[in-house]
Amino acid sequence: MSRFFSEKHASLEPYVPGEQPKERKYVKLNTNESPFSPAPLAVAYARSVIGTLELYSDPELRDLCDVASKYFRVEKDEIIFTNGSDEILDFAFSAFCDEKHPAVFPDITYGFYPVFAEKYGVPYETFPLEKDLSIDVEKYIGVGKTVFLANPNAPTGIALPLEDIERIIRSNPDNVVIIDEAYVDFGAQSAVKLIKKYDNLLVTQTFSKSRSLAGARLGMGFACKELIRDLNTLRYSTNPYNVNRVTENAGIGALLDDAYMKENCKKIIENREYTVSELKKLGFEATDSKANFIFVKHPKIGGKELYLKLKERGVLVRHFEKERLKDHNRITVGSLEQMKRFIKETSEILEEVK
Amino acid sequence: MSRFFSEKHASLEPYVPGEQPKERKYVKLNTNESPFSPAPLAVAYARSVIGTLELYSDPELRDLCDVASKYFRVEKDEIIFTNGSDEILDFAFSAFCDEKHPAVFPDITYGFYPVFAEKYGVPYETFPLEKDLSIDVEKYIGVGKTVFLANPNAPTGIALPLEDIERIIRSNPDNVVIIDEAYVDFGAQSAVKLIKKYDNLLVTQTFSKSRSLAGARLGMGFACKELIRDLNTLRYSTNPYNVNRVTENAGIGALLDDAYMKENCKKIIENREYTVSELKKLGFEATDSKANFIFVKHPKIGGKELYLKLKERGVLVRHFEKERLKDHNRITVGSLEQMKRFIKETSEILEEVK
Repeated sequence: MSRFFSEKHASLEPYVPGEQPKERKYVKLNTNESPFSPAPLAVAYARSVIGTLELYSDPELRDLCDVASKYFRVEKDEIIFTNGSDEILDFAFSAFCDEKHPAVFPDITYGFYPVFAEKYGVPYETFPLEKDLSIDVEKYIGVGKTVFLANPNAPTGIALPLEDIERIIRSNPDNVVIIDEAYVDFGAQSAVKLIKKYDNLLVTQTFSKSRSLAGARLGMGFACKELIRDLNTLRYSTNPYNVNRVTENAGIGALLDDAYMKENCKKIIENREYTVSELKKLGFEATDSKANFIFVKHPKIGGKELYLKLKERGVLVRHFEKERLKDHNRITVGSLEQMKRFIKETSEILEEVK
Repeated sequence: MSRFFSEKHASLEPYVPGEQPKERKYVKLNTNESPFSPAPLAVAYARSVIGTLELYSDPELRDLCDVASKYFRVEKDEIIFTNGSDEILDFAFSAFCDEKHPAVFPDITYGFYPVFAEKYGVPYETFPLEKDLSIDVEKYIGVGKTVFLANPNAPTGIALPLEDIERIIRSNPDNVVIIDEAYVDFGAQSAVKLIKKYDNLLVTQTFSKSRSLAGARLGMGFACKELIRDLNTLRYSTNPYNVNRVTENAGIGALLDDAYMKENCKKIIENREYTVSELKKLGFEATDSKANFIFVKHPKIGGKELYLKLKERGVLVRHFEKERLKDHNRITVGSLEQMKRFIKETSEILEEVK
């Protein structure tokens, strides 16, 4: 750090995103992107504004809010849109956590939560996952802290049933509970409808995964209108034009083309189940993932070794160095062709190390 | 605010962006957008990635950095890109201001500076502009605080010469000096080359004005590599994919199409001088603007009255309620046709109030 960097950031360790290599064309299964192009309508809507980008976006994003409000069956003032869902999570740490409202989340979850907490100087606690990498719901009942839970969790892919999510919300009436549903469309149950019932619930989602718009960056939050108003206070104190015009329009097109999204999710789920079943035949253990990635380990080969050997062979997966994760790999579920290639290379690597 | 909103934000008053009305088609001279479309190459580059938006952007933005590094004659590690220049200013307040490094800026300047300071709980002082709305440079010499100066200033449009900027930087060696050059391409002198000489200088620019990309949101910062590293620590702790793929590519195209930008700036400057000269004939006083807007007042009509009457007639300009600004209006310099329409309506309004 430079001699000018504020001391408050001295211990800040940034989030490390997955590699985006340029030197070689990989089968890219490391950042949970969709193998499918954006919906044709998303492409058409996005294209339609490229020639008039001299104009700012509408800070209120009224057109997108209209479409989203109908799609998700919530009021327009119960939605907020952000530059990817990282931004809504960032706002949530700033808005709903402080000395009196420390944060709590699992020790193994989206790696950005502790970074946001550190950045805002928010005290936080982590509860360890169980041995099988599941979340022990009882730990969060009546915990009296601002709860952040990814559902399905990352990088395990394990989902909690909606009844458990609701028990956590109900038992913490004086703290906001944030349910991060980045991967919800691949088989978990969404808590969005519960915002009508609880004033302490914020649900976040993203267009990056199931809607194939990672490169456009569109995240969203659902909550009662009072929480949304708080989040908008921060948005208008940070970047009122945070969602640009191309992204707003891509989002509109994506929501209008719902059948396309549903069909893609169905294929991803089929490819996930196929891949897990093939890997189990090879001796892998896998969590019960409801996401567009799987989380697996093998008794004969370490996570890092497998990651490196796959990379040599042109297949990129994600490995985390953290103690409880290092034996595993997180593999994005791509097209059937990509998964077959991954399984073939993995099988050959296992032959080598036998 | 909800009962959950952190007390630290209790006094936060968000920035209010200019109106983006949908109910009627206005001659829109209120948010300093360009009247010209983005460069043809910017459009072409942006279009080229719309069909593959399922892929994340490169968090390092290597392609854009390559082009920008050549264009601005700086090293790649002396540049940072953000989701509009609001985001780099936000990072600067968080990175380089704290209890020990309070901020200082003019009482009349970009309205977002005090909002950022409030949001991060940064102590700040404002120095009043002189009676003629110019900045008294001496006040900032050796001030020993983190200095934020828009050059040209907003909403006055008045620019400081580079020698004055350099004196401020040189005399505050233990604080970062941030020069916000959002409007620099319309006639002011850029301080970018000074980053090679001073380790305490951050220059920010935007693609929203001279490069006609307000709707794509692309901001950038120039500084020595140590400051850029600090800012990247915050960027990777906030939103590593902050610039999406369409925006990165639009930016590349815009930089490659430099002649188009220069030609547009020339026209804006001509239209600005024409408009000021016509308004002076009508009895207006105007600051010496070097920006793509003018800042004017008339002895016979209040700023708010003129704003409202112009709005009735379908011409939208910007009025600020703040005491020292309320007699003025800020008018974006658009096409010659737009300026003629604005002058005609204004002239008719003055006839009415005589």
